[in-house]
Amino acid sequence: MSNPSLLILPGDGIGPEVMAQVKRIIDWFGANRDLGFDVSEDLVGGAAYDKHGTPLHDDTMAKALEVDAVLLGAVGGPKYDDLDFSVKPERGLLRLRKEMDLFSNLRPAQCFDALADFSSLKKDIVAGLDIMIVRELTSGVYFGEPRGIIEEGNERVGINTQRYTESEIARVARSAFELARRRGNKVCSMEKANVMESGILWRDVVMEIHQAEYADVELSHMYADNGAMQLVRAPKQFDVILTDNLFGDILSDCAAMLTGSLGMLPSASLGAPAANGRPKALYEPVHGSAPDITGQGKANPIACTLSFAMALRYSFDQGDEATRLEQAVEKVLADGVRTADLMGPEDGTPVSTTGMGDAILAAL
Amino acid sequence: MSNPSLLILPGDGIGPEVMAQVKRIIDWFGANRDLGFDVSEDLVGGAAYDKHGTPLHDDTMAKALEVDAVLLGAVGGPKYDDLDFSVKPERGLLRLRKEMDLFSNLRPAQCFDALADFSSLKKDIVAGLDIMIVRELTSGVYFGEPRGIIEEGNERVGINTQRYTESEIARVARSAFELARRRGNKVCSMEKANVMESGILWRDVVMEIHQAEYADVELSHMYADNGAMQLVRAPKQFDVILTDNLFGDILSDCAAMLTGSLGMLPSASLGAPAANGRPKALYEPVHGSAPDITGQGKANPIACTLSFAMALRYSFDQGDEATRLEQAVEKVLADGVRTADLMGPEDGTPVSTTGMGDAILAAL
Ligand SMILES: CC(C)[C@H](C(=O)O)[C@@H](O)C(=O)O
Ligand SMILES: CC(C)[C@H](C(=O)O)[C@@H](O)C(=O)O
Repeated sequence: MSNPSLLILPGDGIGPEVMAQVKRIIDWFGANRDLGFDVSEDLVGGAAYDKHGTPLHDDTMAKALEVDAVLLGAVGGPKYDDLDFSVKPERGLLRLRKEMDLFSNLRPAQCFDALADFSSLKKDIVAGLDIMIVRELTSGVYFGEPRGIIEEGNERVGINTQRYTESEIARVARSAFELARRRGNKVCSMEKANVMESGILWRDVVMEIHQAEYADVELSHMYADNGAMQLVRAPKQFDVILTDNLFGDILSDCAAMLTGSLGMLPSASLGAPAANGRPKALYEPVHGSAPDITGQGKANPIACTLSFAMALRYSFDQGDEATRLEQAVEKVLADGVRTADLMGPEDGTPVSTTGMGDAILAAL
Repeated sequence: MSNPSLLILPGDGIGPEVMAQVKRIIDWFGANRDLGFDVSEDLVGGAAYDKHGTPLHDDTMAKALEVDAVLLGAVGGPKYDDLDFSVKPERGLLRLRKEMDLFSNLRPAQCFDALADFSSLKKDIVAGLDIMIVRELTSGVYFGEPRGIIEEGNERVGINTQRYTESEIARVARSAFELARRRGNKVCSMEKANVMESGILWRDVVMEIHQAEYADVELSHMYADNGAMQLVRAPKQFDVILTDNLFGDILSDCAAMLTGSLGMLPSASLGAPAANGRPKALYEPVHGSAPDITGQGKANPIACTLSFAMALRYSFDQGDEATRLEQAVEKVLADGVRTADLMGPEDGTPVSTTGMGDAILAAL
């Protein structure tokens, strides 16, 4: 049997730096755990634009559709701020999500014990926090038509369309309910059904799927503005949060920041299972390209490392190996190894990106 | 000269309870400060629906358009959850905003010293916090057409439209820049220009207005997801935040909750100045109708009280009297008078809604 295939897209900013460490970890699994991957590498985002004039070359897109999983670093940076909308780095990522049909974006917001002090929230509010946000990723206002800037009368008008079909809502709801069953068995669905008809349909469909297929899971609903409040007030009330593309963008970033562990948080974007049982899948850290620290060896490779652990679990059915990697990360943290983002000004000397990679490899 | 006119709309849930105290305060200003108001009162939200079958009667709408200012309590409640979208309590409020053309929603997120401990955030992160969020209130996805739930193929599709004209963006931007000049002279504008064309237009117009008319104000831009993160991480970096209707809904609730002072926060919704120089205006607490504590005498009347103080300042040019009222509230808090929402479980006995009203009147 041939090795499973993995496409690596380091991207921009600190993407290549953190990915360099994860490549060492991938190699370690090949050498020591008989888990070889057929790894290829390509460009995305600003890096692709610089070479090809497009943030995602068609060949790269084709490759992404062929492989068993994609691992991405980060895209974007101030260098590309003035580019036309159609070739901005972000468009590369959005095209991957859309053409791979990755409708279910899993964003754990987890507070690592060793880092609870690092949150801006009080320790008792966040210690032990473990939420999973399931964000719809291929529809809504990110992709709805009509869109654009038009002339009307004497002025410009900016237009985007929030658009959700019943089946788009149903499939991401199912993925949230499935996940909840393997966790705390609770789903809270968030929308603005008091203001938006698309939110009414969202709520209706989530309730229908729940009643017909997942009545054993505890379901609640919250308006998204109240959801943001409750995340800040008492985040531990949540288990799985199910929401749309735009609300998910904001609420998951808010939740990630609550944990104080932003440089630690991975994400998975999953599509429907293919013939071989594997979903199309893309894994990436929650953090961005961090232009302010790019090239300084300061970036924390843990979020990208844990994204690879999610790949082991969700794409390659290697839950035990995923746990092995996660435990290595936990050990490193428990030993006090810290990159700069995990330290206060008086906490001593941080390790570099490579130093953290070394420590994780040693712990493995 | 006749007295300025004030329409009181207590609304639902705790709305009437907190408004009862504010009415006593309004009377106090008439009796003691020679500041009489021509006060009328009417129904909005569920209360209006119960009586008239609509959350805002046309007569009430007409009255709101005539008076110098409207003071609203809160709308909504579980009793109305299953009502048709078109007659939900919220529609009453949205109609007021739209027909009064209240495009600029001012939401201060302020942390009261006496309450800093009550935030879920660490004290040093929020103590002294004083942000003003300026939210566009009459356009965007709240009002854009087309909207609705349609049938397409074999399924339902939910549709809403985000739509902003140049002039809609320009006028709310101006109001943010004006406010910034009277505060910390900084505006941070938030959108998703990396994903939405309406966000690109938003950013462009804000930059144009800035360059042409407010180049002395410091302007920055942030994607709304990062904005949510930064609010949680280091909210004191902000002075005025300018954003659209939907992002403003979520971000202002998030910011309000950061302060730990939710029961304390007022808001003003302002239109363009009329012939007499007064803007059309509606004042309301940031908190909702709080059905869980309705009718128990537990509600905190301070947010509604401070909303009336905002009315004194922005509608009636009585800045000194507004300050008098705000200082009375501060004194009461400094004296340790607390409603239940401002207390931990071991902090002693809270005062009732009326008790808080008594204390504020005594301090006046
Ligand atoms: C980079 C950007 C297009 C993206 C988004 O808005 O979805 C990012 O914020 C994210 O959450 O993954
Ligand atoms: C009640 C509701 C319609 C309203 C809104 O979404 O604007 C509320 O959440 C607010 O922020 O004033």
